[in-house]
Amino acid sequence: MKLDKLIGDRFKERPSDCQIDSHALMVRGGYIKYVANGIFSSYPPLKRITRKIEQIIREEMDAIDGQEVQFPVVMPASLWSESGRYESIGSELLRFTDRNKQPMVLGMTHEEAAVQLVREYANSYTKYPFMIYQIQTKFRDEARPRGGLIRVREFTMKDAYSFHTSQEDLEEYYKRAHKAYENVYRRCGAPGVISVKSDSGMMGGSVSHEFMLLTPVGEDSIAICKHCGFTSNVEAAKSIIENVCDAESAPLTEVHTPDCHTIEEVCNFLNSPAEKSLKAVIYQKIPDDEFVVLFIRGDLDVNETKLTNYLGCDIRPAVIDEECGLVAGFIGPVELKVNAPHVVLFDESLKNTNNLVCGANKADFHRTGLDISRDCGEVEFHDFAKIKDGGICPECGEHSITISRGIEVGNIFQLGTKYSKSMGMTYLDADGKEQIPIMGCYGIGVGRLAASVAEASHDEYGPIWPMAIAPWQVHLCAVRADDERVKAAADKLYDDLQSAGVEVIYDDRNVRAGVMFSDADLIGVPLRVVISPRNLDEGIYELSSRDKTLSEKLAPENAVSRLKELIAEMTAK
Amino acid sequence: MKLDKLIGDRFKERPSDCQIDSHALMVRGGYIKYVANGIFSSYPPLKRITRKIEQIIREEMDAIDGQEVQFPVVMPASLWSESGRYESIGSELLRFTDRNKQPMVLGMTHEEAAVQLVREYANSYTKYPFMIYQIQTKFRDEARPRGGLIRVREFTMKDAYSFHTSQEDLEEYYKRAHKAYENVYRRCGAPGVISVKSDSGMMGGSVSHEFMLLTPVGEDSIAICKHCGFTSNVEAAKSIIENVCDAESAPLTEVHTPDCHTIEEVCNFLNSPAEKSLKAVIYQKIPDDEFVVLFIRGDLDVNETKLTNYLGCDIRPAVIDEECGLVAGFIGPVELKVNAPHVVLFDESLKNTNNLVCGANKADFHRTGLDISRDCGEVEFHDFAKIKDGGICPECGEHSITISRGIEVGNIFQLGTKYSKSMGMTYLDADGKEQIPIMGCYGIGVGRLAASVAEASHDEYGPIWPMAIAPWQVHLCAVRADDERVKAAADKLYDDLQSAGVEVIYDDRNVRAGVMFSDADLIGVPLRVVISPRNLDEGIYELSSRDKTLSEKLAPENAVSRLKELIAEMTAK
Repeated sequence: MKLDKLIGDRFKERPSDCQIDSHALMVRGGYIKYVANGIFSSYPPLKRITRKIEQIIREEMDAIDGQEVQFPVVMPASLWSESGRYESIGSELLRFTDRNKQPMVLGMTHEEAAVQLVREYANSYTKYPFMIYQIQTKFRDEARPRGGLIRVREFTMKDAYSFHTSQEDLEEYYKRAHKAYENVYRRCGAPGVISVKSDSGMMGGSVSHEFMLLTPVGEDSIAICKHCGFTSNVEAAKSIIENVCDAESAPLTEVHTPDCHTIEEVCNFLNSPAEKSLKAVIYQKIPDDEFVVLFIRGDLDVNETKLTNYLGCDIRPAVIDEECGLVAGFIGPVELKVNAPHVVLFDESLKNTNNLVCGANKADFHRTGLDISRDCGEVEFHDFAKIKDGGICPECGEHSITISRGIEVGNIFQLGTKYSKSMGMTYLDADGKEQIPIMGCYGIGVGRLAASVAEASHDEYGPIWPMAIAPWQVHLCAVRADDERVKAAADKLYDDLQSAGVEVIYDDRNVRAGVMFSDADLIGVPLRVVISPRNLDEGIYELSSRDKTLSEKLAPENAVSRLKELIAEMTAK
Repeated sequence: MKLDKLIGDRFKERPSDCQIDSHALMVRGGYIKYVANGIFSSYPPLKRITRKIEQIIREEMDAIDGQEVQFPVVMPASLWSESGRYESIGSELLRFTDRNKQPMVLGMTHEEAAVQLVREYANSYTKYPFMIYQIQTKFRDEARPRGGLIRVREFTMKDAYSFHTSQEDLEEYYKRAHKAYENVYRRCGAPGVISVKSDSGMMGGSVSHEFMLLTPVGEDSIAICKHCGFTSNVEAAKSIIENVCDAESAPLTEVHTPDCHTIEEVCNFLNSPAEKSLKAVIYQKIPDDEFVVLFIRGDLDVNETKLTNYLGCDIRPAVIDEECGLVAGFIGPVELKVNAPHVVLFDESLKNTNNLVCGANKADFHRTGLDISRDCGEVEFHDFAKIKDGGICPECGEHSITISRGIEVGNIFQLGTKYSKSMGMTYLDADGKEQIPIMGCYGIGVGRLAASVAEASHDEYGPIWPMAIAPWQVHLCAVRADDERVKAAADKLYDDLQSAGVEVIYDDRNVRAGVMFSDADLIGVPLRVVISPRNLDEGIYELSSRDKTLSEKLAPENAVSRLKELIAEMTAK
């Protein structure tokens, strides 16, 4: 392809609305075009990248016996009602009615469609196991799209669904899928992706993993144990706290704490450490507004995912007005009064603790000397706290947790029978008995993976694409294309490379070398060949790599073979 | 791939809801799964077919300098308002609002998105011409989906948009695109597709062609001239009528025609030929209900496309009640009375005619002896009639028109400036003057093409897929796979073929040969190899083609090379 024909603009200035580098480079390099909030068109370079990623994914899915199918983007609401998700999912599921007033949805995942496709077919144990997948456009009506292709509303995703007759079989397949995912990331040039234990959320099921590309701009927090290698999404990580109980419990005493509304203010005022305080965090359930009063140690934060999972419903920060009886900033477990339906919960960090500071349930007063067992009676403790940097690893028990940021570039779930059971899918086992199949599901967002690779691999001048997914393999620059010798040599190399099956982008514009090179940096092709009058005087072509690790002089007669050799070397297997 | 792992059911019985063969075979062969009205999932065999069709299309688009991009499925209504189509298109455009109450649409074509993608980029004549295309899911909320994949609501389509600085350049490119389309159909194994002149309808523009696969079950009518080769969609074909005027005009006379409501009844009653009568056809405009009274010769039908184009608005059959003043069945041009806004039109077939029978505008009365010029005064005549079988060719003037049925499998349009102008796209020409680019657009429905090929190429047992788009290239049957020799030979051939890069579907189930063969017929793979105990006794494998033109004995040692040779021969270039 000749660069002067490539559609899309490239420019230097970082757009002011781009918070992260990959977004800025995707705009500056002519990869994406904003259409609406969280909705983009792709220019040819990005389309070439995503097609290569899709092909790698397809090969890896085929290698684990996946069969490619296609589900619809638009589905009848009735199908989603079968699983219960039409009712249980919030407004990220886009609902509408068609011309005949039939309620429909835009697919954000396709568990229902997958079950619908195979539930008559897979009526005997002999048909199992099998896996089906598609690579298809999806729509999730995100409240806050961000980061260019990192969090969008419309996206292309590979989603796969496996069906099994036993948990063991699912687990075995799950391992194969895990390996296939590692292959995908390695082959796409993102070997730094790690898999972490995750919360299954609305997908149902129990065991699940997310594949995370670690980067400071990631929107997920990941707990990593430096000691044993344990990894987990913070959302899913158990919080382990060594509770300390003083030998003696002081008496429960009311103290005047004027204008101390936060834990920090109270602890400063009373000169007491946050670990020796009890904090109240108040939510309301969705949709019934019941209050949730959660007590947790003062230095810890609530992991809302754990709380939602425990409650089995969504929550939101509470609206505390005078009627409800709660005194914001001064809420404590003793003599707590709530004039409304409510539930009171205690985090495990409070078990067997004493001498705590807590709210006194009246304005400007706290209490000291709280002894949980003595003053609160028999209460149950559950794990609601967020694991924290420097905290205890739930696997090895060391104080070795670090918290990193990551972008989720894939996920795999052991779904169990959530969908097969609710949608009435059964098969006859070897004894002729009716059974419910067990499912797994496996997703990768294609555009997000492309953006994540750019986020992990770029410099200030542009992305540095790995060979396997680069829009082209070689970027050929004819510097001073108005020089006949240069033009002839470059035209010939362009033709020769194309004949040899090499993907070349060829810049023979009459522009300054600086313009050529900054365009080449933005397009991010891994190998660059420069032909200029000076080079020709020397009898060579200049070869360099986009990542600056390679720079050599090419003998013209060996140029094609050397480039082919390098392309093969640089393509991850 | 082993057949016993292929998901999807195959069965013999024709489903009662399938009107056309390709639909029935797609259901019976495990190609498609009904999800909702006009919405299907694809099983692996169909997915393999459509991916091959897509690749052929991609290669042909790249060969005419197309650049692959991707537009969103979901677009903001504002984008469609820019072109005016948000308002002008009916309920086939699916409109909805997102979670923020923003009005959105599901893309049915992407002219607006194409202009939006390039209107800043293509600001200078030096950027032209260029063509961009995508292969993407689309949604059109059809009132009456039918025929399986022939007319659906959700479909995958290749849509391409070209941009030019002159009409000549567009026309030159349009010819290249026409040729590329012919290549696509030839390579997909549908060489019988013909291109016909078409009506541009809502797409705007003037010159356009449809690519039609001729088949009796097609929903389009195509006029073909046996004499000069002229082809046209009946919707777009000019109707040429040789009007005959008798030497003498009889006086206009009212006659009693009790219970004669149709032209046929009147002509029978008065013993007069239909060509000597005038028929009234009544419509109402959408949305303002204005009446359209159209007079046309009694033996002709109205071409509603021509009428809509003339009126510039949609129409529907009129509701004639007592208030409107029209006397249904007895409407004529003399003393016509309509108590409502209305327009009166005359078809060219009435020009210079006399001695016609027509309605008298009162119940049970007609008139004879109508002389259009004498009795109707000065009226304009326009072409509203449908060309008919045996009619006059508008190109060569012979009575040589035949009407065939066809399925539209592609279309190309010279759009002109409809979208670029309305959406404010301009460029500076060589003189620095602002100009509006001229566009062309080019579509192919992928699923419909697959179904059309099946419609054109099948027998009662299943589709006969052309090699280039067949789900597999070779279907290997191990008859009596429980026989060790058979199993060993078949396993080896399966492995050898796969190593040689041949796509094989391998049936080693322990089922009767009849079951194997009927499954193979439904899967429609072009080459079939049978290995059975009897064959092995003979020292050969049996090779046959799905279309029954080929049947030979394969020496086992030559099997792979012979099959590769045949595959190459059978793949259209």
